Amino acid sequence: MLIAQSGGPTMVINQSLIGAVLEAKKHKEITKIYGSLHGIKGVLEENMIDLGRETAQTLEAVAQTPSSGLGSVRKKPTPEDCAKIFAILQKYNIRYFFYIGGNDSAETTHIINEEAKKANYELRCFHIPKTIDNDLRENDHTPGFASGARFVAMSFMGDNLDNRALPGVKINVIMGRHAGFLTAAAALARVYPDDGPHLIYVPERPFHIEQFAADVKEVYAKYKRCVVAVSEGISDADGTPIAAAYTKEVDSHGNVQLSGTGALGDLLANIVKQKTEISRVRADTFGYLQRSFPAIASTADSKEAREVGRLAVKFSTSSDVDGSVAIKRKPGKKYKVYFERTELKNVAKETRHMPDEFINKAGNDVTKAFIAYAKPIVGDLPKIGRFKGYPVKKK
Amino acid sequence: MLIAQSGGPTMVINQSLIGAVLEAKKHKEITKIYGSLHGIKGVLEENMIDLGRETAQTLEAVAQTPSSGLGSVRKKPTPEDCAKIFAILQKYNIRYFFYIGGNDSAETTHIINEEAKKANYELRCFHIPKTIDNDLRENDHTPGFASGARFVAMSFMGDNLDNRALPGVKINVIMGRHAGFLTAAAALARVYPDDGPHLIYVPERPFHIEQFAADVKEVYAKYKRCVVAVSEGISDADGTPIAAAYTKEVDSHGNVQLSGTGALGDLLANIVKQKTEISRVRADTFGYLQRSFPAIASTADSKEAREVGRLAVKFSTSSDVDGSVAIKRKPGKKYKVYFERTELKNVAKETRHMPDEFINKAGNDVTKAFIAYAKPIVGDLPKIGRFKGYPVKKK
Repeated sequence: MLIAQSGGPTMVINQSLIGAVLEAKKHKEITKIYGSLHGIKGVLEENMIDLGRETAQTLEAVAQTPSSGLGSVRKKPTPEDCAKIFAILQKYNIRYFFYIGGNDSAETTHIINEEAKKANYELRCFHIPKTIDNDLRENDHTPGFASGARFVAMSFMGDNLDNRALPGVKINVIMGRHAGFLTAAAALARVYPDDGPHLIYVPERPFHIEQFAADVKEVYAKYKRCVVAVSEGISDADGTPIAAAYTKEVDSHGNVQLSGTGALGDLLANIVKQKTEISRVRADTFGYLQRSFPAIASTADSKEAREVGRLAVKFSTSSDVDGSVAIKRKPGKKYKVYFERTELKNVAKETRHMPDEFINKAGNDVTKAFIAYAKPIVGDLPKIGRFKGYPVKKK
Repeated sequence: MLIAQSGGPTMVINQSLIGAVLEAKKHKEITKIYGSLHGIKGVLEENMIDLGRETAQTLEAVAQTPSSGLGSVRKKPTPEDCAKIFAILQKYNIRYFFYIGGNDSAETTHIINEEAKKANYELRCFHIPKTIDNDLRENDHTPGFASGARFVAMSFMGDNLDNRALPGVKINVIMGRHAGFLTAAAALARVYPDDGPHLIYVPERPFHIEQFAADVKEVYAKYKRCVVAVSEGISDADGTPIAAAYTKEVDSHGNVQLSGTGALGDLLANIVKQKTEISRVRADTFGYLQRSFPAIASTADSKEAREVGRLAVKFSTSSDVDGSVAIKRKPGKKYKVYFERTELKNVAKETRHMPDEFINKAGNDVTKAFIAYAKPIVGDLPKIGRFKGYPVKKK
């Protein structure tokens, strides 16, 4: 078997990898467990390591470590690449191929699988879900999201207290090009009625600069401070990213660079300064920390990430099937999930967005339905103490 | 007694506050424990709360909570303000005044103390040290620093892994206008020989753009990636902040705004793009998270922060003295501290910088001496697992 990791790292992507490796060790028909370095790049360059030789201790240590232990890649393979990848898999007699990633990785897995079918070569192909964006179809939520959400919520807990101590307007830019789930998770930071984030903007709703400034003014008038959560991908009514005006860099998928720059936050801070009388306006961009911060991963997320890795191997060894492992939630008050095999094409290509019931009417906050959805997967958050604050009578 | 908090929040500033309050409860001569909201601003506006009425449970919950529970302020009082503050302290018959903050707060405490002495009014004034910048004289280190350093080290641990998974140049901007201690703490993130940060720039050394670009090129040639830690306060040979070219905003102390903007990171990223052939260059600015993130505070820092608060009250009730509480380190291999009363003027005004022995010759890294200094106060960091990586023989 060959396994690889792709796309943006998460805090729990190695759980999926190790879940798969440990399950593979139980199956005699899998004689070698290879890991490709930097996703399909490692396949194309025949740059692979033998994961079967790693000790149990190393495997467990890597499982607990954030970011992609095998390295990652943002490469979208060409049809020629896919043909070449398939030829290399054949050369090494690879019969099981596992690719941990988002919708693009599912698509890559799908294409490689089609190549194998055309050639009548038995190759069981499984995609293992991973994305902090939480935008894979078929899934209630995706491994990596809840831990990223946990970082975002914890950050807002602290930052809200910071803003309460030194009042002003604070804008925090969160990852999420098309899906606002991660930004929405900022709402979990609220403990007291006046806690921020007071405003939340996601890419699922058009962003109007004038309305944004008016919203900030309104909150500021009420609380003398305002904490804002904004997705990096917010766009105007025409679908042009607000950040696009400030950056020309595009990634290998032809998308505008949104992460790894403070431009959008600074732009929004300047808008508030220009359109209001508020002087203390600050912006932070959470950047890559939200996907790779160590030691704070969600417990549910870690477990589920391991389970989807384990099940991909389990499904693939049970019969000649391909697919992806999807996380489903059982109805009912208590949080419970189950896992299902789904077809590769069901998670490839198109992604999903936040459902309407998760976004408020004004498009500047989330609903209780979102909180109910996100809370159990993110897990318990730190306790926040606050003085009752009995006023001293003025003399 | 009256107690207040000032300046930038930290993760453990409430430990000092609660340490002082709990100690005050033991002293019958202290009949009321007032807290001023937002530092001296609350005194000037007679906006105070009665901390003596808070429950033990609330006090403990606040102690564990980051950021300034009483609110903070960045106000530098005028001589008229100080006279007015003293008049208000007299009106409320305040006989003990505690101000938790950095060197500016020590200076404010000192001036108020002088007013009291002139008026022959017995007012015992204590400054309680706090600053993530770690720049107070007389102190081996200051409460708040080690927890901020812990956030920085953890962030770099994760970010280094992220950069290892998706190689490129990554620049992270850390707080620190004049002192580089917090930026230097990024070095604690290193576990394996090739781990970042590969370059560390602090304000104690002039920053040369050409040398910076050459340093990045050299690291990139060696590792095919490069992680950089940069203090927000890095300045050129003339002392002009590198960030100054990009921002005109000044704070109430007349300083250029360095935090709450991504401008410096973006500027440095553009320099690398212009002066090298490297295409994937990203910058993150850690911003306010490094001083207010919940639940990751250093154990030593939390304890010591509580102790300086407790001792300020203890010293002030032992005899008619004023001062600040300084943290000293005992010589020897095992980390041990002791605490001393020091004069207010000894910590007011001037700050300290990183000693030369903590910075390498080239001015782009820290020394082993810094690691030995910082490690015990920051505490154990998360374990980072890595595959041995036995290569699969190419076919």
